[in-house]
This record gives sequence, structure tokens and C-alpha cells, in this order.
Amino acid sequence: MPGSSIGQRLVLSSFGESHGRAIGAVLDGCPAGLELAESDIQEMLNLRRPGQSHITTQRKEGDQVEIISGVFRGYTTGAPITMIIWNSDQKSKDYEDLKTKLRPGHSDYPAMIKYNHFNDYRGGGRFSGRLTATHVMGGAIARKLLKHTLGISTNSFVMQIGQVCMEKKFTQSMTKSIYKNNVRCPDIQTAGKMEESILDAKKRGDSLGGVIESVTTGVPVGLGDPIFHSLESDLSSAMFSIPSVKGVEFGSGFEGSKLYGSENNDLYAIKNGKIITGTNNSGGILGGISNGMPITMRVAFKPASSIPQQQKTVNIRTKKSTTLHVKGRHDPCVVPRAPPVVDSLTSLILADHAIISGAIKQVL
Amino acid sequence: MPGSSIGQRLVLSSFGESHGRAIGAVLDGCPAGLELAESDIQEMLNLRRPGQSHITTQRKEGDQVEIISGVFRGYTTGAPITMIIWNSDQKSKDYEDLKTKLRPGHSDYPAMIKYNHFNDYRGGGRFSGRLTATHVMGGAIARKLLKHTLGISTNSFVMQIGQVCMEKKFTQSMTKSIYKNNVRCPDIQTAGKMEESILDAKKRGDSLGGVIESVTTGVPVGLGDPIFHSLESDLSSAMFSIPSVKGVEFGSGFEGSKLYGSENNDLYAIKNGKIITGTNNSGGILGGISNGMPITMRVAFKPASSIPQQQKTVNIRTKKSTTLHVKGRHDPCVVPRAPPVVDSLTSLILADHAIISGAIKQVL
Amino acid sequence: MPGSSIGQRLVLSSFGESHGRAIGAVLDGCPAGLELAESDIQEMLNLRRPGQSHITTQRKEGDQVEIISGVFRGYTTGAPITMIIWNSDQKSKDYEDLKTKLRPGHSDYPAMIKYNHFNDYRGGGRFSGRLTATHVMGGAIARKLLKHTLGISTNSFVMQIGQVCMEKKFTQSMTKSIYKNNVRCPDIQTAGKMEESILDAKKRGDSLGGVIESVTTGVPVGLGDPIFHSLESDLSSAMFSIPSVKGVEFGSGFEGSKLYGSENNDLYAIKNGKIITGTNNSGGILGGISNGMPITMRVAFKPASSIPQQQKTVNIRTKKSTTLHVKGRHDPCVVPRAPPVVDSLTSLILADHAIISGAIKQVL
Amino acid sequence: MPGSSIGQRLVLSSFGESHGRAIGAVLDGCPAGLELAESDIQEMLNLRRPGQSHITTQRKEGDQVEIISGVFRGYTTGAPITMIIWNSDQKSKDYEDLKTKLRPGHSDYPAMIKYNHFNDYRGGGRFSGRLTATHVMGGAIARKLLKHTLGISTNSFVMQIGQVCMEKKFTQSMTKSIYKNNVRCPDIQTAGKMEESILDAKKRGDSLGGVIESVTTGVPVGLGDPIFHSLESDLSSAMFSIPSVKGVEFGSGFEGSKLYGSENNDLYAIKNGKIITGTNNSGGILGGISNGMPITMRVAFKPASSIPQQQKTVNIRTKKSTTLHVKGRHDPCVVPRAPPVVDSLTSLILADHAIISGAIKQVL
Repeated sequence: MPGSSIGQRLVLSSFGESHGRAIGAVLDGCPAGLELAESDIQEMLNLRRPGQSHITTQRKEGDQVEIISGVFRGYTTGAPITMIIWNSDQKSKDYEDLKTKLRPGHSDYPAMIKYNHFNDYRGGGRFSGRLTATHVMGGAIARKLLKHTLGISTNSFVMQIGQVCMEKKFTQSMTKSIYKNNVRCPDIQTAGKMEESILDAKKRGDSLGGVIESVTTGVPVGLGDPIFHSLESDLSSAMFSIPSVKGVEFGSGFEGSKLYGSENNDLYAIKNGKIITGTNNSGGILGGISNGMPITMRVAFKPASSIPQQQKTVNIRTKKSTTLHVKGRHDPCVVPRAPPVVDSLTSLILADHAIISGAIKQVL
Repeated sequence: MPGSSIGQRLVLSSFGESHGRAIGAVLDGCPAGLELAESDIQEMLNLRRPGQSHITTQRKEGDQVEIISGVFRGYTTGAPITMIIWNSDQKSKDYEDLKTKLRPGHSDYPAMIKYNHFNDYRGGGRFSGRLTATHVMGGAIARKLLKHTLGISTNSFVMQIGQVCMEKKFTQSMTKSIYKNNVRCPDIQTAGKMEESILDAKKRGDSLGGVIESVTTGVPVGLGDPIFHSLESDLSSAMFSIPSVKGVEFGSGFEGSKLYGSENNDLYAIKNGKIITGTNNSGGILGGISNGMPITMRVAFKPASSIPQQQKTVNIRTKKSTTLHVKGRHDPCVVPRAPPVVDSLTSLILADHAIISGAIKQVL
Repeated sequence: MPGSSIGQRLVLSSFGESHGRAIGAVLDGCPAGLELAESDIQEMLNLRRPGQSHITTQRKEGDQVEIISGVFRGYTTGAPITMIIWNSDQKSKDYEDLKTKLRPGHSDYPAMIKYNHFNDYRGGGRFSGRLTATHVMGGAIARKLLKHTLGISTNSFVMQIGQVCMEKKFTQSMTKSIYKNNVRCPDIQTAGKMEESILDAKKRGDSLGGVIESVTTGVPVGLGDPIFHSLESDLSSAMFSIPSVKGVEFGSGFEGSKLYGSENNDLYAIKNGKIITGTNNSGGILGGISNGMPITMRVAFKPASSIPQQQKTVNIRTKKSTTLHVKGRHDPCVVPRAPPVVDSLTSLILADHAIISGAIKQVL
Repeated sequence: MPGSSIGQRLVLSSFGESHGRAIGAVLDGCPAGLELAESDIQEMLNLRRPGQSHITTQRKEGDQVEIISGVFRGYTTGAPITMIIWNSDQKSKDYEDLKTKLRPGHSDYPAMIKYNHFNDYRGGGRFSGRLTATHVMGGAIARKLLKHTLGISTNSFVMQIGQVCMEKKFTQSMTKSIYKNNVRCPDIQTAGKMEESILDAKKRGDSLGGVIESVTTGVPVGLGDPIFHSLESDLSSAMFSIPSVKGVEFGSGFEGSKLYGSENNDLYAIKNGKIITGTNNSGGILGGISNGMPITMRVAFKPASSIPQQQKTVNIRTKKSTTLHVKGRHDPCVVPRAPPVVDSLTSLILADHAIISGAIKQVL
């Protein structure tokens, strides 16, 4: 498959461009019999939507989703579910400069070469972060499906913004606090510092990156197709489809590579008659297969490439140096809008594997 | 596809078990007309082979590869290339304990549940690190193909073992030094310290992990299928198929998430009439597409799970606590044997994308 | 992939239901730089549209296609091309009976069981012949692409309706005559007889099937992936996705199985310096690969299952015998509307293989 | 995937060449826990083996299969099952002419062009009918799996050789008679006539084709992925991967296209509390999904292309006319050896769909 689709038996296909007529998604392979309304999807889209607070872009995107196939009398039918958001509020003229001047950090240059300048360059076109709304369309359904059938629950939160890092260890009880602040960090004090640092960066005409942690509970033992479709392979592949993501780790990740085996090994124990591990340095995945412990993953986002500063660059037609001042209304930090995207892709991958393994049936 | 195959148009299928009759690989989709001998593959396999020095396992695996299809009179034919290594020197009795006692950090537990105890548990069976030899079989061909057609060259080296980290920045001229020492670190002084720390861990009956860095030069602009088959998606997916890998990052990665946008953005410039970037924090990939700069990736390996210590665990039949002393001959640190594996999978993914994009033709 | 998508590198995904809000298609993998307007697609859709003459259903379906992504300033961008037709003129009440009474020859029964009655049964829902309009959406683009790049031309025509069979051998000069009559048979006399037989069947409250022949010229030597993605495998797979199709043959097909090898073998010869075969019993495909001769294929359609007669059947709830009089406005013979569908799917498969083999480049 | 693999979740990958070192297959996705011995596969291979009677080629191919992975202590493990037959008795010198002279009806010409003469031309190389033994390797396992889990049984037989056609309708009780004669026709009288016609063709230095009918019973309602992975799409695709196959039809097929809808529709009825149809013109498939009736399919084979006669052809180097007398030991009619191949591919497709739908579980 070309790059617009993900999944084996639960397949999300994304379409649309940032400043085109619409963006949308087709989810094929969803079992029949899941109760589903547009509001199920809208609710999750709203958490990603720009313009929610003073730390995100002030672009107003209504982002009202419409379901146009695959649902009949309130239930999924087993047919592909198509969802659309019609675009509005595009200020395409902001982007005319981009036909020739390469924006540092953006896909403009390789996209122009790859598509020989036929690509829609307005607002990043196909490569815009806006397209992550299509991930959420499918992900909201997958998340509901997992919850409804297996009690699986994915929750992502912001654990680092720039140099500000949440030191407290996340516990399930903190889940409710994630969306209680603008930065989506469940630790209220850290959240305050993160917000400050974003506003500071904004004031400086600069941008920040960060790290999102994702914790998934309720996963049965045995999901994942070794070797090349392991959970880690498929989850990381999904995460790297989010613009700005430059790193993914599971469990103890990069830090774990500095430990001794005797420190990093998770020892097995019995708890309430169930096999568990005392620690969870594996992040719930061994040999690419879920081991029943929470799946923990961290995803690194680079700082947003669009900054309201004059930057040195190159004119691709003249092949000469020039400067560029990127206009448009951009987030000083996209990370606070990304937890629903991480949740969505995580849910899509896990639901796909649950369907493949038979843990979720074709008809509910 | 189930998990034993990777790639879209250049597809590697792996088969075999650690203590079965053989391990092997089928590479389908290799263009016709590539000169290929068993020695091309053997050379790269030898770099991965155990028993090469006092810091790796003393298991002797001859690992003599045989090509049994797809090559005719010294050239690839366009038909699937099948390669086999017959197993020998298995000490299967070492593993009888593992039918019931779960090895911490290994796939034993989820594999037993997933396959209801029908899995071949000897030496990890299908999940053994030994299976990375099958990645190298296909990867050696992909690497030769990339070199021969596009001049692409992938070189991986050990940049961290436990707490010992190479501080010097890697430059292309260091490539020749990688295999001049046992740990595969091109900086000779760091290599010495790494070797010491491995021997120290061995003495303590413990193990170490580390980080491998991979640098690929000569990549044309425009490889990668946005969104879900971006280079980062496909490369990370491939890396996480290596047992013990728990983290992958590109360019400035996790560290980059702490920078300002103005620091992390790579500014464009013209050099010898060619568009380049001054820095390479993107790791050569923007919007999931290669931008012509070297592709840089770091891969984190957890410390080897098999350690010659008594560890607490659980008996899966009795569901009671017990202890386990893993026997067998294991590496105190697998990282020095992994660079050829990282090179192989990187080459397979890049060659697949080069074929898909038409940069490599069907017939050479 | 679940069943709504076809193709490897040029992938058509179909969505929608007969009586839902819309039907549509996403075409991913189309090279950038193809000039494309809605009229290119509309033109081919019009040839399939019902209500064109007295021998087809009198349902009026406007079938106005809209392109909502993937085209920018009149050219394809390399991004997925999404096309939609909004449904109208559905008379859903005609179908309420079908919740319980099984229509002979239709998918109702297996669909109800497969989806546990969650399927949209109105007008056949997902299984309706109306969905072939989504094949045409993608096919019209593929056909234009093939013509524009390689000069490949696919032309299908009706060669049999019920017992009336065109005896004349089709020649390229007859192409222009195909759409000059209502039945799409290029032989005017046979066309007249076919039309009579359809009107006669209509009068009797019955239906007819038939055979479509497809001839594709300009195919380069070497398209097709042996063994399991041969041209014959992929073309037949595509044809059987058309409702009512129950047989596919290439070249001399079933009749060829009665000949001697010495009769059926196509002998090679040189014509204008080019290698050709004197006869074309192979239908332009040998070993699954195109040999440069015209690709000839015949596709058998069963008579339409919906007939305005009382038929014996079963009530799936009561599991008792009953009778059913299918209402709605149905074609007495769908075959005259099917040549654009056969052309579309043929073009999609050939364009996919032309892209895979590098005969069509990623950017035009 | 390139053309050497078939299936979605139960994937057969074929490798090898007619005159190379070996032919073999990898079956990935087979559930764990199926009792499996080499003899299970050998038994079915023996039914396909040449040299069984005076009407087949006198080549002696031992065709002893070895399982080299995926089976542990007599049961499948869930890992890929690899099977190999080492080649012997090749008379490669018979084929040296074929480097330049094109054999009519064979893949030589398109293969040479596609692979620019790098293909292994000996005995057809990758395109040889001998490769259907790899289909049987995987198919024997799929067939056992279907029988063991769902009681599904596929039986194919020869219904036509040249002009001799079996008129009697096949009934299940005739299954036992299929392999009681050399031609694999369950009607003993027709079998005699078929044998005569083959011997007559052999005497004339000519060859014959024929038709195989396949009947599968015990199929549950609901297998098949509409639209593009319908049972008919996937089965036909598999059949056309058999060399010499030029036509496939289901149920009433091409003949059905001549009937009225009122004749061809299968009326539903209740029998022993179960929904059945009185006739089975649909061949057990409606809307691409199994309806619980036997799946009936007919597969047309062209007469073997290799005939011991002098034929006109072309020299591909000189581009001049020449003559060719194909040597080697060839079947005057391959059809009697093909029923196990048709059974195998049918079983592979049905098992894949049974796994996908959850009708067969991941662990038995």
C-alpha cells in the first residue's frame, strides 16, 4: 500500500489536504454491531482542535465530523466507515511564498522534489499536522471498540515540554487530571511551569517540543505478531506517522540501555492468582507480544518548525540563498494537542491486533 | 501478512528456530541482474557471528549460508532468493527448565500464552536473537544492491555500552575503524572502556545494553511514502523487530525535544550547487521523506535478559513463585554483534523504497 | 486488507452503500502531474449510469462526481484522490420486506449471517451493483493514466446477451461502434437482436445475463508479477468483484481446453521488426506476464437476480417458507451498463502493474 | 507483495526453480497446535507426482518433502512452516536451445524481456509447472486444517479432457472414485475415453487440455471479504497462478449467462431446520460470501505447450524466423496431475478466510 493507509485487518485510510476542500478518513474492517454516533468521534476531535486556549494557534477550525458511510441506524455495519471534515478558514495567500522558498524543518523541500512541484504546498498540504485529525477520526472508533469489547484503555499525557519535565510517576488515578489544564499534563504544578515556558517561547517568537507518554491498561496477554509485526514495530510505525515525532521508546527505553540486566529485568510474581511483573521496564511488551502489564510508550516531538522569525534559507528555483519569514497562525508548541493523536494511533494498532488474534470478534 | 515478512516490493521472509533444523530467509522482489555469491552474504554474517572474541558468547555457530534459489550463473534472476543456515551445536537440554519456569525479560511467558505451549521454547525458539541472522541474509543483498545502483552506504556502530558513551561526533572517515575492535566502536579510546565494562559485567554475572548509531549516506531526495509508510515509520518498525530494542530516534531525537525551534531547525544552504542543510537535526528525513542529508538513527538495546544469576520467577504450571538460574552460553552484551543487523534492516527498508520509487529499476 | 481495497501501489478503496448518504472512492498512489478534471471521470460514469434507455432501469441517478482531494490546480499531486457521489432518489421503503425475506440470487442471506443483521440491507446496501460506480471513479483515472503514458487502451463490449451471441470477430476498428447502440455491442445487427431479447425478457418479467469481452491494446511486454500476482490472477480477481460475474477467461479460455496443443499454441513471427504471434489464443498473457499482444478477456454475467415475479423463498426469522415479490426498479439486464466497469477494473490492474514495473513513473 | 506469496493471514510463499537446487514453500500464519507430519504433505504430493502412469511424463521426481521449521514434537508452533524438495534428475542440457529460440505457448519470451535474460530458463525455471508442488506443500496443510477444525472438504476431479466430457453430475459419493484411475475422473467410463484420447494425442506428438471441477463441502455461511477479497476474487486469483489455466467459473458460470433469471436463481428452502437452496447455480457463493451450499468451481487448462513437433518460431537474438523441436520429457496432458493443485489452492484460500473471520482460531 502507498502511505495513506495503516493496519492489516482494521485499516485506516486518510485523505485530504490542509487547505483543500476537505480532510477525511475511511476505516475498513471495523466489526459490525458497535454503537456509533458522530458525537463519539467529535468528542475526541475536540480535544485535538486548535484555538482551545492561549497557548495554541488561534486558527479556528470547526472540525465538525460527518459520517457518510458504514453506520446504519446507529450501529456499525461491517462496511467501511467514511468520515469527513469540510475545510474552512484557510488563509491560502499566507503560503504563496512557499512555492519557491524552503521552510526550514518542514517537508517542503523533499515534497517538491518527490512530486516535481505538483504537490499542494498550501499550509504543508498533505503533510500538515492538520491531517492528524484523520488519525483521530479512526482512532476514536478503535478506542471505543477496545473499551467496549476488552476494557482496554489508552491514556496519553504530556510529560515534558522543552526543558520542563514531569518528575512524578504517572498512576492510573491521574488519568482524570490530564485534560484539566491546557497543556495536558496531569501533574498540576508541572503543568503550570510548562504553560509558562510555552508562553515565554511564544513571546520570543520561538517554539518548543516535548514528550508524550502513553499508558494502556487492560491489554490481554498475547497481542502482537512476531517478528516484523510486533506490537513495538506496529506502534512505533504509527507514531512516526505523526509530523514532528522524532523518537519512540517503550518501557525503560533509552535509559534502560544504561542499566545492568539484573536491574532492568522485570521479575515475575503472582498477584491475586495472576502472573504479573514487579517492575515494568519492558513497557508491557516482550518479544513483541503483550505480556498483560500496561503498555508504556514515550514519543518525542521536535519543536514546531514554523517560527515567526526571519530564517536563512534557499530559493529552490534560483538556487540562491534568501531569507524567509514564515507567516500564518502557528502553535508555539503542538505537543498539548497531540495526546488524542497518540491515543488514536495506539488504539488503532491494538484494535487491529485484537481483531487479528480473534480477541475481538467480527460481529459484536 | 503475519509477522515473518517485511517490505512491500522487496520482501524479506524469515523462518526457522534457534534450536530447530535450520534458519533461513527468502528475499522476494530483488531486481534481476545483480551479481551475487554466497560470500557476499557470508561476509556480513561473519560480522554478526558469536564466538568472535572474549566479550561475546562462546557458542560456536558456523553459520555457513547456502543460496538455494533465485541466483543463476552468478546473477540474481528476479525470482525469490532463498538462503539457509543449518543449525548445529545446539545444547537443547539446557532449556528443559523453560517449559515451566519463566525467564525474566524473555518472550517465554507471552509466547506460551499466545501459542498455548505449542511454541518451540528451546533457546527462545522463534524469538531468539539468533534469528537476526536471517535479517542479515536479506540485508547483505539489499546493502549490495544499494551500493551498486545508487552508491548508498549504511554504517552502524556502537556509540554507548551501559554508562560508557562515545562523545566524539561520528564522521565518515571513522567508518573504517568500526570493525577494528571487538565492540565495534570507531573511537578507539571509548572502545577500550566499553570492553572493560563488558568484561566487568561478565565477571559480575550480569549483562549490559547500549545504543547503536546508524549513518546512511548517498540517499537521494524523495524516498519514503507519506504518511504511514514514511521512512521513519518503516525504519523504526524494522528496528523494533530486533530482540532487545526498546527505543529508536532520528536526528536530534529525544534531545531535540528539549531545544527551541530556532535551535533545532536545519537551515538550508547551497553547497557546490546542491541544496543542503547546515545542521542535520532532522536526521535526513523531513515529512517522512529523505532530504538528501545523511540518515541518522539511534537504536537503544536493553541489557541482555539472560544472566548467570539466580532470579525470582514463577512456575507457569503451578502458578507459584520459584527461582531460576538460566544456563546456556550467553552474551554479556549483544550490542557489539548488532551493527550488521541494524545495517541490514536499514538497507532492506531503503532498498524497498528505492524500488518503489523507481530509483532502482526492476532489471539492473 | 479487508475487501474494500484493490491494488498494490495504485490502490482503489471503495466506500458507501446503495441507499446511504453517498458512495465514493479513494485512489491512492496515482502519480503526480496527471491533468485531471471531474469531467474526465463523469464522462465514464455517464456510460454506466442507469436510465439511459428503455432497456435499463428507469431509476434516475444523477451520479455527479465531486473530487474532494488529491487534485490541485488541475493536476494530480501524488496524494490520495477522493471522489464522492451523493445519493438521491432512493426509495428505501421498497426494501423493508428484505429484513426477513431472502431474495433469491442476492447476497442478503450470507450478508445477514456474516454481519448478524447489522448490514444495511436497503437495495443490497454495500453489495449493490450501484457500488460499481466507485470502480469507475478510480478506473477512469487509471484509464487516462495508461493512455497518457503508454498509449494503452482498453475497450470492452457486449458479445453475448442470453442466447444471442455476436459471431463476428472483434477488430479495433469496431471500437467506435460500441457506444452507438443501447446494448454496447459493436455489431449493429447482433445489437438489434440483443435489444429485442432484453425487451422480451422485460415483458415476461424476467431477466437476462450475458458476456462482455475486453480487448486491451498497447500493452508493453513484461507486465505481471509471477506467480500469485500474475496479470490473469489480478485481472480475474478484479472482475469477480463485480456483482453477477460468475466466469472469467483469457484468450481461447474454456474453448481452448478442447483443442490440441498444436492448434492452440501461438506461433511466433516477426512483423515490422517486432516479435508477434500469428494467433492470440493466449490472450496476450504467457506465464502470467504480458507478451505484447492484445489482452483479451471474457467475463460472464449471470442474469439479474431481481425479477418482478413472485418467487419461493424463506423467512430468516421464522425459518419458514414464504413467497417474495421483489419490488423496486431493476434492470432486466445489467450487462449493457457493465463495459465501463470492466474497462475500469482492467485499467486499474494494468496501471498498478505498470507503476510497479516502473513502466509508469511516480511523477509524469 | 511481489508475486511469490498468496494469502493475507495464512500466507504461502513459494520459492525455487525447475532445475535449480530445490523448490520449497513457507507457510506463515498456520495456527499452533495442528498435528503435522511430513507424511501428511507427502501423501498429497504423491498424487501430483509425475511418472505415475503411462499417460504422464516419465520424468522421475522423487519429490520427498522435508519440513525444516515450524513444527515441534509433531505439532505446528505458530511459526512459519518451511518445506523443501531437493531437485534431482534434471536434464538441463535439453534446454540450452531455449536461450534464443522461443517456445510457443511458454513464458520464455515475456520472461526474457521482463528479466533481460537473467531468468533461469532451464525447464521454464520459475514458471515451470513443477512449481505447483510448492502450492501442494502449503495446500496439504491448509486442507488438513480445514478438515480438522471445520469439517470442510475439497475434492477436485477431471471433468473434461480435450473433447471428452463427463456428462454425469458429480455427487459426493463419487469422491472415492477420483483417484481410482489414471485420469482422475470419477466416472469410470468417461475416464476410459479420456485415457484413450490422451494416448492418441501422445501418439500424434500432440497434447490435450481439459477442465477440472472442484467441489467443497462443509463451508460455513459467511466466509469472504466483500468486495475485492470476495471468495470468487481470491479463489480465481489463486487458480490463475497455475500454469496453463485460462478460465475459471463458479456455479453455472458461462452457461448460466445464457439462462433467464427465473431459471438461474436458486430458491431458498428449509431442510432439516437449515436454510438451503434447491439448486446451486451460484456455486455456493453470493455477493462474494459463502452461503453454506457446496462451493463449485471449474478451471480450464489449455493443452500443454510443449509438444514433440517441429514448430515455427523466432530467434530472439537474431530476430529471425527459425524452427524449434522442443525436447525433454513432457506430459501429453497435465490435467490428470492437477486436481491436488486445485484442491491445495482452494484449501489455502478457504483456510485464510476461515482464519480471518475467526472461524478457525489462532490456537487449536
